Amino acid sequence: MCRHSNAEHSMETGLTGLITLTTDFGLRDPFVGIMKGIILSINPEARVVDLTHQVESFDVVDGALALVQSYPYFPPGAIHVVVVDPGVGSARRPILVATPTYRFVGPDNGVFSLVYEREASFEVRDITVERYFRKPVSQTFHGRDIFAPVAAWLSKGLAPEALGSLITDYVCVAVAKPERVSPNLTRGEVLRVDKFGNLITNLTAGHLQHEGSFRILINQIRVTQLVSSYAEGRGNGVIAIVGSAGLVEIAAYQASAAERLGAGKGTEIILETQ
Amino acid sequence: MCRHSNAEHSMETGLTGLITLTTDFGLRDPFVGIMKGIILSINPEARVVDLTHQVESFDVVDGALALVQSYPYFPPGAIHVVVVDPGVGSARRPILVATPTYRFVGPDNGVFSLVYEREASFEVRDITVERYFRKPVSQTFHGRDIFAPVAAWLSKGLAPEALGSLITDYVCVAVAKPERVSPNLTRGEVLRVDKFGNLITNLTAGHLQHEGSFRILINQIRVTQLVSSYAEGRGNGVIAIVGSAGLVEIAAYQASAAERLGAGKGTEIILETQ
Amino acid sequence: MCRHSNAEHSMETGLTGLITLTTDFGLRDPFVGIMKGIILSINPEARVVDLTHQVESFDVVDGALALVQSYPYFPPGAIHVVVVDPGVGSARRPILVATPTYRFVGPDNGVFSLVYEREASFEVRDITVERYFRKPVSQTFHGRDIFAPVAAWLSKGLAPEALGSLITDYVCVAVAKPERVSPNLTRGEVLRVDKFGNLITNLTAGHLQHEGSFRILINQIRVTQLVSSYAEGRGNGVIAIVGSAGLVEIAAYQASAAERLGAGKGTEIILETQ
Repeated sequence: MCRHSNAEHSMETGLTGLITLTTDFGLRDPFVGIMKGIILSINPEARVVDLTHQVESFDVVDGALALVQSYPYFPPGAIHVVVVDPGVGSARRPILVATPTYRFVGPDNGVFSLVYEREASFEVRDITVERYFRKPVSQTFHGRDIFAPVAAWLSKGLAPEALGSLITDYVCVAVAKPERVSPNLTRGEVLRVDKFGNLITNLTAGHLQHEGSFRILINQIRVTQLVSSYAEGRGNGVIAIVGSAGLVEIAAYQASAAERLGAGKGTEIILETQ
Repeated sequence: MCRHSNAEHSMETGLTGLITLTTDFGLRDPFVGIMKGIILSINPEARVVDLTHQVESFDVVDGALALVQSYPYFPPGAIHVVVVDPGVGSARRPILVATPTYRFVGPDNGVFSLVYEREASFEVRDITVERYFRKPVSQTFHGRDIFAPVAAWLSKGLAPEALGSLITDYVCVAVAKPERVSPNLTRGEVLRVDKFGNLITNLTAGHLQHEGSFRILINQIRVTQLVSSYAEGRGNGVIAIVGSAGLVEIAAYQASAAERLGAGKGTEIILETQ
Repeated sequence: MCRHSNAEHSMETGLTGLITLTTDFGLRDPFVGIMKGIILSINPEARVVDLTHQVESFDVVDGALALVQSYPYFPPGAIHVVVVDPGVGSARRPILVATPTYRFVGPDNGVFSLVYEREASFEVRDITVERYFRKPVSQTFHGRDIFAPVAAWLSKGLAPEALGSLITDYVCVAVAKPERVSPNLTRGEVLRVDKFGNLITNLTAGHLQHEGSFRILINQIRVTQLVSSYAEGRGNGVIAIVGSAGLVEIAAYQASAAERLGAGKGTEIILETQ
């Protein structure tokens, strides 16, 4: 079930011409460059920033995580485009999410689920007004034909309501949440592995801070030490740390915890507290 | 043999300050960053967009394909720089291709062959006027010493004729074309594999649309189903689809057709129609 | 021991709004995008250029090499941010290096060692004035919380002295230098392998040019031919060439010298001259 907002705030934002892109396109093919060409053809003043183009192929949750980790650091008025879109050309709708601060454009496949969770006030629209699309619209590359041009028009000041009607039946996907199995036992999991091999879990600072000592079990290895910087992990084997996104990470000093533990996305984590 | 144009149109374009870069430099070394530094030193107002820097090393045809897939989506006046340049420092010339819409800058090794094929009107110049080069000109990095500075000067309004004389003996490379072997049999090949493992062939929509049923043979596997979106391929094994560049692709739903078929660049494809 | 400058020149530079980024963050995680969001939130007019984000993880020397190879090509006033920062959150200081031409911002771990070597005049400051930081400052991501915001403020004209006091005990790291073992024998090493598999050594043009014939021994293979362009290496096996950074490279025509020689970063090179 999706969270809904009563959208009592105004959805007016300033104009910055700033558009971010998050995709699973990679950087080998020129898909991202093509989207930038379309954007700059419509709004020559737009500035485009890449968040990442290496979302796992077809992985809507991975895209949702990359987005939520990044978008709050952008200035008000920024337009965030996400194209992780295995259903392109099928019945899934293109949507616009408007908050008092930002616009989000992408497929209605749950990639904005963590935006719905995080934002106090938002509205969602089905993008149906085709005059803002590139024609003909292909069934294989809506990033080029729908999402890029719509974002470009928004960056020129087009109002969300010009793009389509409000909807409430937008799609959400479940991002694994920690589960309290018993008073002292919480089961979480690894959401992502970062470039350094740090395991980003779905446990938050709060899970560790309210407690005294703890131990985390992951692939039968015990982690008992909480450090406050990676450097503090030196000589300490595998440690826990609260990362820059506020999530508990399992890390190792200048080494890959993922490799050391043979762990990766989806690996179960058991937190025992006393 | 290269296609020639009688260049009857004016080659005047607007000024956008927009420069795209396509190279085989990768992103690990700072070669691309250096080119941007040179460009911005000459024209601080230039905006640089990356098409791709992961063209196969030394592969002029791969560069030509990436370019032709992307450049038409940019606004008039854009300057497209391509540096796939195994002959750097040898006798191969630096050239400028001007159309009524765009400028292209790069080595005369055939990397613009598909531009010559696609454009109704163009002219090609040997870039010889060294005052627009960075000095001293190295024999190993013309991207930095010739192509980037020349593009930057063009983006400030320098006219093509200021850079050198017209030539007609520019180099073309052959990009494999489908061959009709018999009335019902066409032989094509895989041009590229995209990030998702889709096999981009040199067959076009036309090869399939004029026909009734068809079958495609690739590595002894038969493909008989044409779908209009990747999602429609669900549960259908390996399928054919007309991709966003207008080329027939062999694909599989959320999987790599390249891996499934053990196919890649250069793999032969036989199209049988009835 | 670090080189020191008496900083007799003025450290005033022009304002360009240009900020370059060099990190070991890779492009899969949105760390780089987040830094850009912070920068554009503070200075919407800033333009950010990526040098590389694929510095070897935690490798300060590799970061120093990427930086020194690139920064001199940028216009005066550019601000260069480097985040290769294994000691983030520990006692290591954030520093600012100012020259008459550029600003550099990053951790005091030696990543600016080659700037100190190259610049005639510079000053180094401990960045301590927290009002220019993002709050709260994490102990895991100073790229976001300190270096990006400080660079953004500098790009708006903030003076270096507003950020902290001059220091002289900044950290240097040793980058391997060639060693003359006997009048005819110099021992060098491979500093980096580039994307094409060229081995970038720490020998310079000067080591070869003052001499007559030479031979280079690397992994028991003898290299005796010096060519002036990669193309000239055709049919010549493994050759030596002076690359675009002025360093001797060991290369092979359209092939990876690194693979052919089984050589890589740190491999010893013996130069014999007569």
